[in-house]
Amino acid sequence: MPEREIDTSGPGAPVETVGNHELIGSDRVEGTSVYGTDGAKIGHVHNLMVNKRTGQVAHVIVSDGGLFGLGGSRYMRVSWGDLTYEPDLGGYVAGITKDMMDERGRISAEDAEMQIW
Amino acid sequence: MPEREIDTSGPGAPVETVGNHELIGSDRVEGTSVYGTDGAKIGHVHNLMVNKRTGQVAHVIVSDGGLFGLGGSRYMRVSWGDLTYEPDLGGYVAGITKDMMDERGRISAEDAEMQIW
Repeated sequence: MPEREIDTSGPGAPVETVGNHELIGSDRVEGTSVYGTDGAKIGHVHNLMVNKRTGQVAHVIVSDGGLFGLGGSRYMRVSWGDLTYEPDLGGYVAGITKDMMDERGRISAEDAEMQIW
Repeated sequence: MPEREIDTSGPGAPVETVGNHELIGSDRVEGTSVYGTDGAKIGHVHNLMVNKRTGQVAHVIVSDGGLFGLGGSRYMRVSWGDLTYEPDLGGYVAGITKDMMDERGRISAEDAEMQIW
């Protein structure tokens, strides 16, 4: 792609001033805000779950950060391809809603990572 | 693979007691020690560089942590497949050496991430 084109496909803040548009550091994805399709903030990226053998990101764990940061966080898996970086929001938009997080989110990151639901 | 088999292929601490052997969280890989083929400690995993579109880990950035933690860290790229988890060391073994890091490592993480050498 052209050097200055902004690539908003998949996760990753567009970075116009550096040479590599195609890659993003895991530490930059972690902590980035996640918004639902309705524009409401859901939470942030907790981590990326990576296939040990292939290095393919299987999914991302999104956390709602708990109630007023007082704990009780809920976690959900979101496919990498379901995250789209939205420059205006400064975060990702995902095909989930706050209600889905409340109803189906796991109460521990470990549960979410282990795909036990 | 059988539930209790230890999988040491690719990065990832073997976890015998949980249900999912195949995936590892990016936050668990980050910070894990990296050793050279000669057994000497090289540094630790700084982050994972992920293809924004496909979610494939292109490579891992290894940092030597600087001299006595006083800054001046050097960074190198290592292929995901070149990292093998070694339970006895509690870290990854990679096909690089301390000398390679000293001679070819970049002085900033950004340079290493951008693949400019």
